[in-house]
Amino acid sequence: MGPVGVGIAGLGVVGSGTVNVLTRNADEITRRAGRDIRVVTAAVRDLERERDCDVSGIELTTDPMKVATSPDVEVVVELMGGEGVALEVVMAAIAAGKHVVTANKALIASHGNEIFKAAQDAGVTVAFEPAVAGGIPIIKAIREGLAGNRVEWLAGIINGTSNFILTAMADGEGTFDDVLAEAQRLGYAEADPTFDVEGVDAAHKLTILASIAFGIPLQFDKVYIEGISKLAGVDVDYASELGFTIKHLGIAARRDNGIELRVHPTLIPKRRLIANVDGVMNAVLVCGDAVGQTLHYGAGAGADATASAVVADIVDVVRALTTDPDNRVPHLAFQPGKLADLPILDVNESRTAYYIRIAAVNRPGVLAEVTRVFGDSNISIETILQKGSGKSEEVLPIILLTQRTIEKNIDQAIEKLESLDDIVGSVVRLRVEHLSE
Amino acid sequence: MGPVGVGIAGLGVVGSGTVNVLTRNADEITRRAGRDIRVVTAAVRDLERERDCDVSGIELTTDPMKVATSPDVEVVVELMGGEGVALEVVMAAIAAGKHVVTANKALIASHGNEIFKAAQDAGVTVAFEPAVAGGIPIIKAIREGLAGNRVEWLAGIINGTSNFILTAMADGEGTFDDVLAEAQRLGYAEADPTFDVEGVDAAHKLTILASIAFGIPLQFDKVYIEGISKLAGVDVDYASELGFTIKHLGIAARRDNGIELRVHPTLIPKRRLIANVDGVMNAVLVCGDAVGQTLHYGAGAGADATASAVVADIVDVVRALTTDPDNRVPHLAFQPGKLADLPILDVNESRTAYYIRIAAVNRPGVLAEVTRVFGDSNISIETILQKGSGKSEEVLPIILLTQRTIEKNIDQAIEKLESLDDIVGSVVRLRVEHLSE
Repeated sequence: MGPVGVGIAGLGVVGSGTVNVLTRNADEITRRAGRDIRVVTAAVRDLERERDCDVSGIELTTDPMKVATSPDVEVVVELMGGEGVALEVVMAAIAAGKHVVTANKALIASHGNEIFKAAQDAGVTVAFEPAVAGGIPIIKAIREGLAGNRVEWLAGIINGTSNFILTAMADGEGTFDDVLAEAQRLGYAEADPTFDVEGVDAAHKLTILASIAFGIPLQFDKVYIEGISKLAGVDVDYASELGFTIKHLGIAARRDNGIELRVHPTLIPKRRLIANVDGVMNAVLVCGDAVGQTLHYGAGAGADATASAVVADIVDVVRALTTDPDNRVPHLAFQPGKLADLPILDVNESRTAYYIRIAAVNRPGVLAEVTRVFGDSNISIETILQKGSGKSEEVLPIILLTQRTIEKNIDQAIEKLESLDDIVGSVVRLRVEHLSE
Repeated sequence: MGPVGVGIAGLGVVGSGTVNVLTRNADEITRRAGRDIRVVTAAVRDLERERDCDVSGIELTTDPMKVATSPDVEVVVELMGGEGVALEVVMAAIAAGKHVVTANKALIASHGNEIFKAAQDAGVTVAFEPAVAGGIPIIKAIREGLAGNRVEWLAGIINGTSNFILTAMADGEGTFDDVLAEAQRLGYAEADPTFDVEGVDAAHKLTILASIAFGIPLQFDKVYIEGISKLAGVDVDYASELGFTIKHLGIAARRDNGIELRVHPTLIPKRRLIANVDGVMNAVLVCGDAVGQTLHYGAGAGADATASAVVADIVDVVRALTTDPDNRVPHLAFQPGKLADLPILDVNESRTAYYIRIAAVNRPGVLAEVTRVFGDSNISIETILQKGSGKSEEVLPIILLTQRTIEKNIDQAIEKLESLDDIVGSVVRLRVEHLSE
C-alpha cells in the first residue's frame, strides 16, 4: 500500500521535531507500521521563517484548515496549541474523516468530551499521547497496559518547569524567584510562567489522566489547583529535615464517595522513587488493585521527546486503520456510553496528611495550646519539630506533621490557630502524601 | 455481542490470579473491552486440589489440549510454563484459530520465532506481556509507545529474586547464601533457584525485549549470561564506597557492528533512579534516540501483578478482533519479514567499563606493576582504591574502575595480572554501566 499522508498544523518546536524524527527514523518506523508515513503538508504562521527541519517535499500553507481538509492527508497532527483555532482545525479534520493526533492538553482537557463524541460519530481516532508527560507513553500504559486494573490512585510530576524549580530550591540554589529566573534563562520556563508554576498545565494533564484511569468524563473545571509560586525555601528545608522532598504533584484518587482531583506542592518521603525524579523530568505513579504501583518516567517536554509520542500515535493510528471503528481502543479507555458519573469531590472533602508551620510566641504553654487545637479538630499529630531554643528569640517556628484527615478539619484547625494570641501571622499548610498504599 | 470465551491452561498462582482479577474487575474490564470476558474452561493437574479462586462456572479438565481446541474458547491463556507441553498447547491453539496469551518467557525466548510464524499464517495473535517484568506494561511501551524511536539500548532489573538478594546484600543482611536462604523462606526464591540467580530467567526476558526493541529475531542462545551466585559481599561494599550499587541487569545495546546482549551483575551509580529499585521490584530503562531515557517500574512477579498483564493482553486481543490480521500490531513490534539481521556480538567484543579487584602483595612498586598492565592493554583507569595500610598485612586489596573498553582487552589484562608474582589468586571483574547516554 502507498504511504500514509500526514498534515501538520503548527511547525514550531514539536512540529519540526516530528518531521525530523519521521525523516531520521523513516526506515524503522515503516518496518513497524507496515506503511510509509509521509508529511505532505504543514501549516505555519510565517512562510518565510527559517525552520528547524527539512521541509522539502512538504507543501507549506498559512491556513491550517487546508491541512485539516487536504485530500492527501489521512492523519492531521495538531501542534498549534490554544483552544481557539486549534479546536476549529481538529473539528474540521474530524468532519473531513481524518484521524487526528494532538499534543494540546488544554484542548483535550477542556473540549475533549465534544471532540471524542464527534470523532466517534465520524469513525475516526483522536490520539493525544503527546498531551501528557511528553515522551512517556503514559496514556497507553493506563488505557491499555493496565486495562485489567481498577485504578485506585495516580500521582504525577507532570510539569517539568515546576519540577526544575523545586529541584533547584531543594538543592539550595535560591528562592522561588531566583530559580524561576534561572529556568527562564535556560529556556525551561516561559517569559510568562503562570500556566506552569500556578499548576494550570498540570491540571490539564491530570484531568486527562483521571479520565482514562477511572472512566469518567473530562472535568477540568473541577480540579483543585495550587501552584508553587508561594512556596518558601524554609519549608523546603524543614521538609528535608523531616525526611521529605516537596514535589508539585497532580493527584487523582478514588474514594468511597467520589474522586479527588488536585494539583499542589506535596511532601513525599525521600525514599520513594518518584521523590528522586529531578530537574525537568516527569514521572507518573499509578496504583492499580491488581498490579500495585507502577512508575513511568521520562522526558516530559522537548522537541524530540514530544515528537516521539506524536509518531507513536501516528503508528497506532496506522496499525488500527483496518479496525472496525466501534471496536477500536476507546478514546477515554472506556467504551463511549460506559463512562461513570462518579462525583468529583470538593477539595475540603479530600483526605491526606498535612505539614503545618506555625510562628508562635516563645512562652511556656504555647505548644499545649497548639496541640489542643488539633485534638479539638480530631486531627492526630504524627511529628512535632520545634525549632530554635535561645531565650532571645521571641517568635519560634513550630512544624507539625499530621496523620491523614479530612481537609475541612485542617481548615478549621488553622482558623482556630490563627485566632490565638500566641500565634503570629498566617499558618503555612502543605499536603503530605506517603504514596505507600 | 456475546462474551469472549477464555480458556486457561494452568490454574496455579497466576492462573488463579487471572480468574480473580477477571471476576473482581468484571465491570471495569467489560466497560474497557466492549465485551464481557468469561473464563469458560481451565486445565489443571489435579481436579481435586483446592483452588485460590472461585471455579464455579468454569469447566475443569486435566487435558490442556481440550482447552486449546474448545469451540467455546476464543482466547487461550497458557500459564503452564516449560517448553514441552506448553509449546504443543500453544501450537494447537493457533492451529485451531485461537488467539493466545502466554506468561511463558522460556517458551517465547526459545520458540517464539516459530510460534509467531504459525500465528501470522493462521491470522491470530500471540500476546506475551506477562512474560516480561510481570505487571509492568513494558512490551507495549517498547512495541507501541516508543514506536517512533530508534532504540539505542535498554537495561533492566528483570528478575525479582536476584534483586531481592542484591538489595539484602547491599543492606548488610549477609552473604549470598544467607540472603538466598531468607528469600527461599519468604517464598521469593524457588527451592532450586538456579534459573533466577544464574541469570537464565533474565536472559529469557532480555531476549524478548531486545527483539522488539531492535526488530531482530529471538536469539536466546546468543545471550551472554552471568549470575549473582559468585558475588562477594566485599565487592558490594567496595562498590558502595565508590558510589555504586550492584544490580543484576539484562542489557541490550546497539553498536556500530551489531547488538550486545548480556546479563550480569553490574555496578550502577547510586544516583540513577534504577539503582534505587529495591527488593523484588522490577524496572526497565529504555533509551531511544528521540525520547531519551524512559524508566518503567513495577512488580515483576506475583499472582495479581502478572494477572494484570494477562488481562491487559486479553483486552488488547478483544479490542483488535476486527482488525485485518495483516494490519495488527506485529508480534515482535516490526512487520514479519522486516526483521533485521543485525549480528549479536560475542561478549568479548562488548564495550563497557569495569570494576577490578586484585589481591596484591604489600610491597613497594606493586601498584606501578598493576597500572602498567592496564596501560599495555590500552585501558584507561578512572579510579584506584587501595585498602588497608597497616604494615602487618601481607596482602592488600586494590580496587580499580576502568574507563570504557572492549572486553577482550580486559580479559588480556586480567590474564597478565594473574601471571604476576605479586598478585595472589584470581582477579575479580565486574562490569560497570553509567547509563548516562
